[in-house]
Amino acid sequence: MVEIAVMGYGVVGSGVVEVLTNHAENIAKRAKEQIDIKYILDLREFPGSPFESKFTNSFDKILNDPEVKIVVEVMGGLNPAFDYVKRCLEAGKSVVTSNKELVAAKGAQLLKIAQKNNLNFLFEASVGGGIPIIRPISQCLAANDVVEIAGILNGTTNFILTKMIREQMTFDDTLALAQKLGYAERNPAADVEGHDACRKICILSSLAYGRHVYPDQVHTEGITKITLADVEYAAVWGGVVKLIGQVKMMENGKLQIIVCPMFIPRESQLANVDDVFNGIMVRGDSTGDVVFYGKGAGKLPTASAVVADVIDCVKHFKARKYLYWEDGSKDYVEDYLLNEVAMFVRAESDDEDLAFKNINQIFGGVTRLSRKKPANGEIAFVTDVMREKEIVAKLAELEPLGVNVKNMIRIGDL
Amino acid sequence: MVEIAVMGYGVVGSGVVEVLTNHAENIAKRAKEQIDIKYILDLREFPGSPFESKFTNSFDKILNDPEVKIVVEVMGGLNPAFDYVKRCLEAGKSVVTSNKELVAAKGAQLLKIAQKNNLNFLFEASVGGGIPIIRPISQCLAANDVVEIAGILNGTTNFILTKMIREQMTFDDTLALAQKLGYAERNPAADVEGHDACRKICILSSLAYGRHVYPDQVHTEGITKITLADVEYAAVWGGVVKLIGQVKMMENGKLQIIVCPMFIPRESQLANVDDVFNGIMVRGDSTGDVVFYGKGAGKLPTASAVVADVIDCVKHFKARKYLYWEDGSKDYVEDYLLNEVAMFVRAESDDEDLAFKNINQIFGGVTRLSRKKPANGEIAFVTDVMREKEIVAKLAELEPLGVNVKNMIRIGDL
Repeated sequence: MVEIAVMGYGVVGSGVVEVLTNHAENIAKRAKEQIDIKYILDLREFPGSPFESKFTNSFDKILNDPEVKIVVEVMGGLNPAFDYVKRCLEAGKSVVTSNKELVAAKGAQLLKIAQKNNLNFLFEASVGGGIPIIRPISQCLAANDVVEIAGILNGTTNFILTKMIREQMTFDDTLALAQKLGYAERNPAADVEGHDACRKICILSSLAYGRHVYPDQVHTEGITKITLADVEYAAVWGGVVKLIGQVKMMENGKLQIIVCPMFIPRESQLANVDDVFNGIMVRGDSTGDVVFYGKGAGKLPTASAVVADVIDCVKHFKARKYLYWEDGSKDYVEDYLLNEVAMFVRAESDDEDLAFKNINQIFGGVTRLSRKKPANGEIAFVTDVMREKEIVAKLAELEPLGVNVKNMIRIGDL
Repeated sequence: MVEIAVMGYGVVGSGVVEVLTNHAENIAKRAKEQIDIKYILDLREFPGSPFESKFTNSFDKILNDPEVKIVVEVMGGLNPAFDYVKRCLEAGKSVVTSNKELVAAKGAQLLKIAQKNNLNFLFEASVGGGIPIIRPISQCLAANDVVEIAGILNGTTNFILTKMIREQMTFDDTLALAQKLGYAERNPAADVEGHDACRKICILSSLAYGRHVYPDQVHTEGITKITLADVEYAAVWGGVVKLIGQVKMMENGKLQIIVCPMFIPRESQLANVDDVFNGIMVRGDSTGDVVFYGKGAGKLPTASAVVADVIDCVKHFKARKYLYWEDGSKDYVEDYLLNEVAMFVRAESDDEDLAFKNINQIFGGVTRLSRKKPANGEIAFVTDVMREKEIVAKLAELEPLGVNVKNMIRIGDL
């Protein structure tokens, strides 16, 4: 019998308790031990709950109980989660978490403490919800150099973009619908500004390349500026707009990493990942492209990933799982303006012909796009591949010539 | 330092040696041990090979060398692979294999010997090549009841069907092309008759439900009867023809399992799995649908999966991996004629109107399909969902009424 504690009884926490209870027999068989929830930490009270006797509002009770060998942290946020998790690891308890904010901000530090104390710190549920991705990257792909990871890592924004693409709903209307359906928070910034996707690509990158990348090192753009015009131009170009987190190792040993909306060709496996689903492409030098697809969030998918980690902890009390990365450094990430990229540009101009004469002269040729009912003076084109700073400079040259950029979207090479 | 032997130096075997050599440093880091290839078993000689000194044609040399702790079996086929693997396990050596024929025919027996001797018998590469699937099913999805598995499990047939769909090439022409490109064997029966896909769905099913399903228990149809007319009707219906291996657990405790071509709706994640790629959908009661996509075959993808298993073996000399299923039984699989299914039917008739009058009367209504340039007297329709034996009986009733069935393809509920 292994005693565990669950910290946080929100959506994921209650899901963890539910999965552990409903699948108890199977789980015991797989873990080769019965798993018992001794405490559930929550400030609220849950009178009448079948787990009423397990609730506590005292973290110290969990910390100081030597019987508790594994702690599940599903509170979310950095505080007090970081402090609690750190103290649990220091007290000799393995920790399983679904908290991407925590892992993205403090992963290297917590993994170091876990290693020092010969404990496990596992976080399969922090990326991709119920999609197995942390474990496949760390284990199955051990015989590969990871060339690239690119993914649709946030279900809320993918739902919004899918509605915009399929039903020509505006961003604002779709966001309101997503909030009504419970897919988006009342304050949707973490999703629509790309922060959630950024945390996830940071975790995947840290794992794949062995050094921590911090969210503030990653150029991150959300989807708030995407209009139906952009969606339509993406279709004309031959694809769809998706919010992508992408990382590649460059030859100079630095990372090329970014989170932003991209035009994705229709043939790409990621182009067909719709609604609240996530899709993650891992390109290995031996395996080629492997894509993982599924629900990236939700109570039971996420809970089932947490429980799989708990089972792994139980099975590996003595043989620690290999899951580790070093601390990062300031110069580890390449300036995104130095990345080579092709760019979709939507702009306004009073004189279309003159505008394209100037654009073609300054860019040395672009691919012009047109849609059925453009706004007055609207023009659109796709540049060749060049350094992003060059594109920005050329567009700046065009401004005094009467070409006013309204939006820029990178072309994904996926 | 761990000594291993590689049995078989064909495509996969040479890939295993290549991956172990090229990624030696990374692999040693992950396995926490250096891995050394002591022997390569092959009847052929490879003069001038950098591994020349390691070659042997004596299995006994490997068997009787106590230094060899792990044996990689990549010879393929049942004989002598089964005998060799069995004797290795009995001699206290863990075994890693990519041999789906072996695992599908002898998995339960070999897993039992491995368990008895506290050894590992691992076979990630036997399904999906470089796609991680065995490990995710057995570990990550431990907190799920597997409701269903369905997949495109054979790259050769998927390549052929893709060409038929996209380029209207006939089956015969596409098969010849696949052979020319090295995607299909000179004797293509194992692929095009569905036997390869059958072995793989047997392995996945055995793993997911804990009891061995043998290939001869599974109704298996290949793609040799698929014509361009069928492909065109699939498009009219709203989808594509794919060779699918599918298994579900029924309420009566029996398995519904089948390998056959199916019409798959265009919206299905599996509909977009094209060319030589594989895609496997695992439906869990907690996770919902998770799809794994990638190259299902090929030297390096398969080799990298084998090497990942070798690393796992090294890390788990003392803590055995949980990977086990019981032996099966004769009545474990439901008669496929009892399955409920909708069916596409292509037939011939001298009098189309009379034919549909009779069809509608006997079936109580069907969905009629038509294509642009049908053959003389060609008719096509899709039945409602009913037991397959009912469909067969009704079609038999129609035969004396002048409706001659040319092909039947099941409608996939994917």
